[in-house]
Amino acid sequence: MKRIVTIGGGTGTFAVLSGLRAHEDLDLSAIVTMADDGGSTGRLRDEYGVLPPGDLRQCLVALSEAPNIMRELFSFRYDRGGLKGHSFGNIFLSTLERMTGDLDRALDIAGDVLKIRGSVIPVTLEKVKLMAELGNGKRLEGEHSITNCERISRFGLKRLWLAPRPKANPKALAAIRDADLIVVGPGSFYSSIVPNFLVSGVLPVLRRSKAKKVFVANLMNKDGQTDGFTAVTYVETLEHLAGRGQIFDAVLCNTTLPAEALLRRYADEGEPVSRGAREVVGRPIVGRDLLARRLYRPKAGDTLPRTLIRHDPAKLADAVLSFL
Amino acid sequence: MKRIVTIGGGTGTFAVLSGLRAHEDLDLSAIVTMADDGGSTGRLRDEYGVLPPGDLRQCLVALSEAPNIMRELFSFRYDRGGLKGHSFGNIFLSTLERMTGDLDRALDIAGDVLKIRGSVIPVTLEKVKLMAELGNGKRLEGEHSITNCERISRFGLKRLWLAPRPKANPKALAAIRDADLIVVGPGSFYSSIVPNFLVSGVLPVLRRSKAKKVFVANLMNKDGQTDGFTAVTYVETLEHLAGRGQIFDAVLCNTTLPAEALLRRYADEGEPVSRGAREVVGRPIVGRDLLARRLYRPKAGDTLPRTLIRHDPAKLADAVLSFL
Repeated sequence: MKRIVTIGGGTGTFAVLSGLRAHEDLDLSAIVTMADDGGSTGRLRDEYGVLPPGDLRQCLVALSEAPNIMRELFSFRYDRGGLKGHSFGNIFLSTLERMTGDLDRALDIAGDVLKIRGSVIPVTLEKVKLMAELGNGKRLEGEHSITNCERISRFGLKRLWLAPRPKANPKALAAIRDADLIVVGPGSFYSSIVPNFLVSGVLPVLRRSKAKKVFVANLMNKDGQTDGFTAVTYVETLEHLAGRGQIFDAVLCNTTLPAEALLRRYADEGEPVSRGAREVVGRPIVGRDLLARRLYRPKAGDTLPRTLIRHDPAKLADAVLSFL
Repeated sequence: MKRIVTIGGGTGTFAVLSGLRAHEDLDLSAIVTMADDGGSTGRLRDEYGVLPPGDLRQCLVALSEAPNIMRELFSFRYDRGGLKGHSFGNIFLSTLERMTGDLDRALDIAGDVLKIRGSVIPVTLEKVKLMAELGNGKRLEGEHSITNCERISRFGLKRLWLAPRPKANPKALAAIRDADLIVVGPGSFYSSIVPNFLVSGVLPVLRRSKAKKVFVANLMNKDGQTDGFTAVTYVETLEHLAGRGQIFDAVLCNTTLPAEALLRRYADEGEPVSRGAREVVGRPIVGRDLLARRLYRPKAGDTLPRTLIRHDPAKLADAVLSFL
């Protein structure tokens, strides 16, 4: 059974995992960023001192083989009252972590209730804050501030780090070491993808792993953050911010343009990502149609902005498995 | 397999069910009051328009055969932050009811997750408010106001009713009809016990049921509400408020006094309930030692007052089963 590891967080990783779950013969592990501090997750962190549940919850639901109602329950978001903005799954995870003082145990229990196939692994079990320094010397504190900063493109991002620098979760390192294929992205670049590589221990183990390492470029750039990025720029920027040289063996990039009407509607959020080149320093950039035909509808009560142009889980899974 | 039905709500019913669950060969159904509108339950009702989850949740936990951590999760109460005062189990039930619009389905799902033995049945599926009229003509609106009223003993309770008068849940009527033994109480008398008998359809089916009907008197009277009540007074008051004559075949009453120190400590909350007589209009009043030796410790974050002198679940179960 081939061992596939995803690294990321948020809706991009949700799409990859949902697609891969449909393939029976895979051993799946999702390594998940722990830098989130916005929305429901941010409030639970502030009020209860827990680790961020949001990205973990999305991965649990993606890997769940429980009846739909349980998957819907964990994704349910309150649109009013005292629970407004919270997702039920975030409350579930944070409550169990609060009770047991052990996020790993909370994930095991949630995994049982959701009958997940595979494992969901926090990249670190330490509490961290994502920090950034822009080219103009200005510092940004917290994932939420960085995600919402519209001046990253203008000034450039000099440095991104986690404070304090956390040790990797040993389970994450073991999964990376034993993987046959590691899939990084897609996802919110500076806030969900890069932070995983800033955790102490991840890069050396990743480099030594015999796994094929594939980077999946986003469909759309984000205005103010990754303007004008091609697939090449994403890989180069990630490898630069992570430091210590090349990480990936190949890059996967969507080649189908979203409908004109949709692009016009979201013109001020960003433009489609193009390949940029055939390769990036010796590594192939593979173009494929990865676009979901069905438009995503945001949930009532969700207080965070969400990308409406999304990857198709099945196409994404087929494409990444072609690298095995 | 003998069919046992409990009627009530709150910690008293929790004790009966916990005790009965230890007996392998019983078919258990808990019929639960739906009048609660205080604390976490009241906020969820107000904010999300759901039926009251609190008493149902306690019965689910009492019947649960899931690992302890799941039982603890459903009973967990938040002691700070935006979720302060809520219990996780209440949020679980209300969220599923909100999603599906179907409390029965929510209970089925919660029952699966908690691996319950038996069924938990809301006495009605209609939204109601408990109303009271005191002897001085003053009206009280809502279960919470009635529970907290300290003048019921002084003025007497002329009338108690549910507005609007709800129809019974057909599942509750079927359980009553098919029961071998029906156990009513112990529990908060005016707010958790009597309201079940004010639901349209309950009394006639109860009278026709061939089941043995046992009333379990509380351990302690409640100051301002049931001052000076004996086991006899409880039964007579319930049968008077429900109307249409006798309901019970027997009455069970604790005969062991709590420790002097404990009684002194809770002297202004109420005094122990005594038998009052050997029988009430031809029905025996059976005295037994039913007292829990271990003192109950209230949970952090619980905003409602809780009785600290409690029934022992095993003694209670043995005593009620002796009526079979």
